[in-house]
Amino acid sequence: MALHFTSERRLDDGVLERAFTLGEIPGILWTPASAPARASAPTPLILLGHPPLGLRAMYPRLVARARRAVADGFAAATIELPGSGDRPRRADADRARADLRRAMEAGEPVGDEIVDALILPLVDRAVPEWQAAVDALLPLPGLGGPVGYSGGVISIGVRLAVVEPRIAAAGLYAGSFVPRAMFDEARRVTVPLHVLLQWDDEGNDRQAALALFDAFGSREKTLHANMGGHTGVPRFAGDAVADFFTRHLK
Amino acid sequence: MALHFTSERRLDDGVLERAFTLGEIPGILWTPASAPARASAPTPLILLGHPPLGLRAMYPRLVARARRAVADGFAAATIELPGSGDRPRRADADRARADLRRAMEAGEPVGDEIVDALILPLVDRAVPEWQAAVDALLPLPGLGGPVGYSGGVISIGVRLAVVEPRIAAAGLYAGSFVPRAMFDEARRVTVPLHVLLQWDDEGNDRQAALALFDAFGSREKTLHANMGGHTGVPRFAGDAVADFFTRHLK
Repeated sequence: MALHFTSERRLDDGVLERAFTLGEIPGILWTPASAPARASAPTPLILLGHPPLGLRAMYPRLVARARRAVADGFAAATIELPGSGDRPRRADADRARADLRRAMEAGEPVGDEIVDALILPLVDRAVPEWQAAVDALLPLPGLGGPVGYSGGVISIGVRLAVVEPRIAAAGLYAGSFVPRAMFDEARRVTVPLHVLLQWDDEGNDRQAALALFDAFGSREKTLHANMGGHTGVPRFAGDAVADFFTRHLK
Repeated sequence: MALHFTSERRLDDGVLERAFTLGEIPGILWTPASAPARASAPTPLILLGHPPLGLRAMYPRLVARARRAVADGFAAATIELPGSGDRPRRADADRARADLRRAMEAGEPVGDEIVDALILPLVDRAVPEWQAAVDALLPLPGLGGPVGYSGGVISIGVRLAVVEPRIAAAGLYAGSFVPRAMFDEARRVTVPLHVLLQWDDEGNDRQAALALFDAFGSREKTLHANMGGHTGVPRFAGDAVADFFTRHLK
């Protein structure tokens, strides 16, 4: 898929933000505004995952994570998820989301069929798109280093870590429903992992998150559990993620 | 109890190490070799907890932790636990340890009575001694800041955090048996906590450790779980503990 830059602007802290399309998929790339010397090592790339709420809604949090990544010496990039933002809605995804809402409003347990319908098609469609983004971004001038995946829908991160050999480390957020089938994939993950868990996350199953952490096959895996709800990840937890990527991508 | 320094030496990295006795209890204090300017804020003190294996056996790991603490701008101190090292053995503690060994060698579950007999008298005796150490150390020139407790027998840290108001933050190692009675005390802890758990610790009950973490009453509590056995805490996990104390004691 062809990458086309559609706009660019300099943020006040020396970050160059470029919007792009990859085929029909909108995305954003953040890099240092001043190009590194030609001879220096290529900049590692961190893929910024996010929940399926649309890039526009997620922008404030994404740009904050991107600024931190660039300050730490990385490039950062994200793409719109299938069915989100301005991309065509998918009837099956809308149906799954409605089923989920109904179950949660009724106070019923969220059944496996709902979780599978919500997550598995999203993973199947999103992962090849993230791989296409890596294909298109790594050849750009200055980029090329190892790739990290950070945050967003944890099942997308798990699948990417299994199927995409350029992913050298992953920072995962155990904050979304996990289909049972993903536990088998988790056993096949071998890259270093840094897993965040919000201990009292209202909409998340803590035991499932701990079981998923246990299942990961990685020799180096770290779980950081903190207080606060789903969106209350403390600042120092973000610092620890940054330290993790610095250890593994540089 | 009276504090008497019995020896001192300078370590090569600008750390002054002073052995002392507090009544009959041996201990060690580590401070920066060059005294801070008179007007500067008093140096916070980190109490270095350790398992009941004797200060001499634990010295290499303790001095490494102390060097890091001093490099980060803290003083560090430790005292011998009751019944350990050169201190008089206690028949009840020896009996509890023999019972534990028998149960573990027989592959039997370690019953509540064994855990209670092993831990509760140790906590009852050790905690007032750590408090006496704080009484004796804080008035020393340069010291006086807030106090942290780090590592060692987790039940000692829990009790200290409950009963000793000068403890402003605690870094706990979820790596030893926890009597059921300690869960009630855990609910009464309110200081910021940083809890380390070795996920595959052979001699430790992971579910009990997670339940204890859940029980803590602190509004800020963080769990860091890592791979590796009981003594395999990775270096970056120690860095995170250091960041925690820097956030809370300075």
